[in-house]
Amino acid sequence: MHFEAPLALQSGAAIRGYALSYETYGTLNADRSNAVLICHALNASHHVAGVYEGQDKSEGWWDNMIGPGKSVDTNRFFVIGVNNLGSCFGSTGPMHPNPDSASGQVYGANFPVVTVEDWVHAQARLLDQLGIQKLAAVMGGSLGGMQALSWTLQYPDRVAHAVVVASAPNLTAENIAFNEVARRAIVTDPDFHGGHFYQHGVIPKRGLRIARMIGHITYLSDDVMNEKFGRQLLDAVRNGNLSAASGVSEPNAVGSVGAYKFSTQDVEFQIESYLRYQGDKFAEYFDANTYLLITRALDYFDPARAFGGDLSQALVRATCKFLLVSFTTDWRFSPKRSREIVKALLDNRRDVSYAEIDAPHGHDAFLLDDARYMGVVSSYFDSIAKELGVAA
Amino acid sequence: MHFEAPLALQSGAAIRGYALSYETYGTLNADRSNAVLICHALNASHHVAGVYEGQDKSEGWWDNMIGPGKSVDTNRFFVIGVNNLGSCFGSTGPMHPNPDSASGQVYGANFPVVTVEDWVHAQARLLDQLGIQKLAAVMGGSLGGMQALSWTLQYPDRVAHAVVVASAPNLTAENIAFNEVARRAIVTDPDFHGGHFYQHGVIPKRGLRIARMIGHITYLSDDVMNEKFGRQLLDAVRNGNLSAASGVSEPNAVGSVGAYKFSTQDVEFQIESYLRYQGDKFAEYFDANTYLLITRALDYFDPARAFGGDLSQALVRATCKFLLVSFTTDWRFSPKRSREIVKALLDNRRDVSYAEIDAPHGHDAFLLDDARYMGVVSSYFDSIAKELGVAA
Repeated sequence: MHFEAPLALQSGAAIRGYALSYETYGTLNADRSNAVLICHALNASHHVAGVYEGQDKSEGWWDNMIGPGKSVDTNRFFVIGVNNLGSCFGSTGPMHPNPDSASGQVYGANFPVVTVEDWVHAQARLLDQLGIQKLAAVMGGSLGGMQALSWTLQYPDRVAHAVVVASAPNLTAENIAFNEVARRAIVTDPDFHGGHFYQHGVIPKRGLRIARMIGHITYLSDDVMNEKFGRQLLDAVRNGNLSAASGVSEPNAVGSVGAYKFSTQDVEFQIESYLRYQGDKFAEYFDANTYLLITRALDYFDPARAFGGDLSQALVRATCKFLLVSFTTDWRFSPKRSREIVKALLDNRRDVSYAEIDAPHGHDAFLLDDARYMGVVSSYFDSIAKELGVAA
Repeated sequence: MHFEAPLALQSGAAIRGYALSYETYGTLNADRSNAVLICHALNASHHVAGVYEGQDKSEGWWDNMIGPGKSVDTNRFFVIGVNNLGSCFGSTGPMHPNPDSASGQVYGANFPVVTVEDWVHAQARLLDQLGIQKLAAVMGGSLGGMQALSWTLQYPDRVAHAVVVASAPNLTAENIAFNEVARRAIVTDPDFHGGHFYQHGVIPKRGLRIARMIGHITYLSDDVMNEKFGRQLLDAVRNGNLSAASGVSEPNAVGSVGAYKFSTQDVEFQIESYLRYQGDKFAEYFDANTYLLITRALDYFDPARAFGGDLSQALVRATCKFLLVSFTTDWRFSPKRSREIVKALLDNRRDVSYAEIDAPHGHDAFLLDDARYMGVVSSYFDSIAKELGVAA
C-alpha cells in the first residue's frame, strides 16, 4: 500500500511517499468487525502465516499461532500482517530511495528515526485504507507487544482487545545496554560508512554478526542453552561420540579429555558454532540501518514517561480488554515486566487476563509451540469470536 | 622472576624463558607458614594492594580487602600477588618477544594457549623460588577463584586453605557464549590482523571496546543497572534537572519528554555513555591477544571433565579447608554455581564454610566493599591466623 501524504513522526520529522507491505489471511466479515492486526518484533515481517506458493520453507513467522483452525483462527478472523516502516522486508526502509533526495539517493542513515508510536500511526492509516475502523484485536510479541499496547493508548476506540505477549512497558537499563553494544558493533564496522554503505557496495557484516550473536544470547534462557549445548565440543558431535538424546553435557568426558583443540579462534564448543551460524545467516539478509532503527524504537518506548513514570496513569486511556502472556525463563522481558502492565491495568479496573507460562525457552518461547501457551491464546480468541458472534 | 626452564603446558606445548611479575606485602615468618597467594581474574594483575610511591591513584585491585589491618591482614600474612602468563601487565605475554623466533618477533597470536592449570603450575614454580613450600591460603575471585580451586587439586599438599569467591566449577553455555561474542568482535576487527597487529602499528580497539561493553553488562546486576542508570538520559544529567540522589529513574519525565534526541548513533541514555566510556578506557590499555587467551582459559576450566562430569569425584583430591563466597545478584557466576562446589566438597566430607552475601552489585560485588562480605573473609583469616599462631 502506497501512502503519498506525509506521516508526521514523533521526532518532529515526517516521511512521505512511503509504502507498507502487508498480507491478509481469512475474510473480512460484512460488518468489518473481525480484523486482527499482528505486529512484528525485530526480525520479522508482514508474512506472519502460511507459505508462499511453491516455496515449502516459507512459513510465516507466527505460522504455528495463526491459520485455519489455529489459535488465531483465520476461518473466523481476518488477520493482517504489516511490515513496519524502516524495516527491510518490503516496507519503505533505509535501502529505498529518499523522495527528498534530488539525485534519488537511498535513505541510508538519513532514514528518519521511527518510534513504536509512529508505527502504530502508520498501521492505523493502513487500516483506514482497508476500510477497517475497529480491530477485534491487536496482537504482538516482544516489540510487537509494545505496539499492541501502544494501539490501546493511541487509538483506544479502534481496539476491542489487545494481546501482549512476552513484552514490557519499557526497556530496562540492561535491555538498552545490550541494544547499544549491538549498535556499536555495527556502527564501528569500517564497512558501515556512517550508514551509507550501499553506495560503497559493501555490507557491515562483521557488526551485524556480533549484533545477532548478542541478540541470540538474550533470546535464550541459561537453562535451555545448557540443555541444548552445555559444554559439548563441536568435534565430539562430529565424531559421533555424543548421544543427541543425552543433551545435557558430555556423557563421556573421560574419553574426550584430549579433544580440546587449545585454540582461541577455532570453534571449540557447540554453542560457539551455533552463534556463529546465526550471526552469519543474519548478516546475509538483515539491513544494518534497520537494526539501528528498530533497537532504538525499543529503547524509546516508554508510555509512562509522559506521566512521571506512573504506568497506571499512562494506561488510563486504555479501555479495551487485555490478554497478557509471559514466560517464566524469559530474562529479556521477564514476567515481572508483564506483571507491571497487569497491575497498571488493574489499577484502572480494566478487564485483564494474564498467563505466566512455565516454559524453558526464554524470550524465544513466544515464537515456539507450547500447548499451554497456544491453549491460552486459543481460548482468548474463542471468547472474542463469541463476543463478535463469528463462527468457524 | 625469570624462568629459563620450559614449562610444559596442558595443550602439549611448552613455554621457556618467561618472566612472572609479582609483588609481596607483609613479612614471611620464620617457618614460612604465613604466605597467602592471591590469584587474579581477567582484568587485573600482581598489584593487588597498596599504592605505588608518588602515585596516589594506583591502589591495588583488591586494596579494600588486603593490607595492614584489613580482612587479609598484611601485618599477619605474607601476601603474594602474581600476574599470570599471557596477561598484559608485566608477566610474559603476547606482546613480548618469542625466544623461539629467530628474528625476535613478538608472540602475538603464537602465544601458546594457557589454562588455569598452567597458571597454577607457573605460580607453584614462583613459590619454589620464594622458598615457600605450603600456602596458608590461596585466594581469588571469579577466574581467580578457579585458580584457587585448581590449586587444591593440583597441589593438595601445598595449600592449607582455599578462599574461592564469586566463582564456578566451570562455565555454562551462556558464559561461553558471551566470551565467544567478545572474541569474535576482536578477531573480526580489521585491525586485529590475525593477532599480529603489533607489526602493523595498530590496535583492534573497536573489538576491544565491544568486548569490554559486553563484559560490563555481565558484571552488573539488572537491579544495580536500573538503580545507577535506569532510563536516565545523558542530557538530563548534563542539564542538571536530575537529582543524583533519586537514582532510580527520571524524576520528572513530563518535563523531559522533549529531551529525546531521536538519534540512533548519538548517546541518548546514561547507560550508553557509561558503557562507551568503559569500552574506550579498556581499549587503551588491554591487549587483544590477552583477552582471547584469558577468556579461553575460562572456557576450558572444568575439573569435573576428567571424571565424567562428576564434580564430587573431581574434588576427592582437595584436602584443604575451604571458604566459598557468592553474591545473590551475581548472574554470571550465580550462587548456584558456588553451591555446586560446596556440595561436592561436602560429599567428600571436607571442611567448608560458605557465605551467600545479599548484595545488589552482581558479579562486581566481589571487588566492592560490603561489610558482611569483608566480615566473613576477616573472620576466616582470623581463624587461619589462630591455627598458625600468628599475631598481628
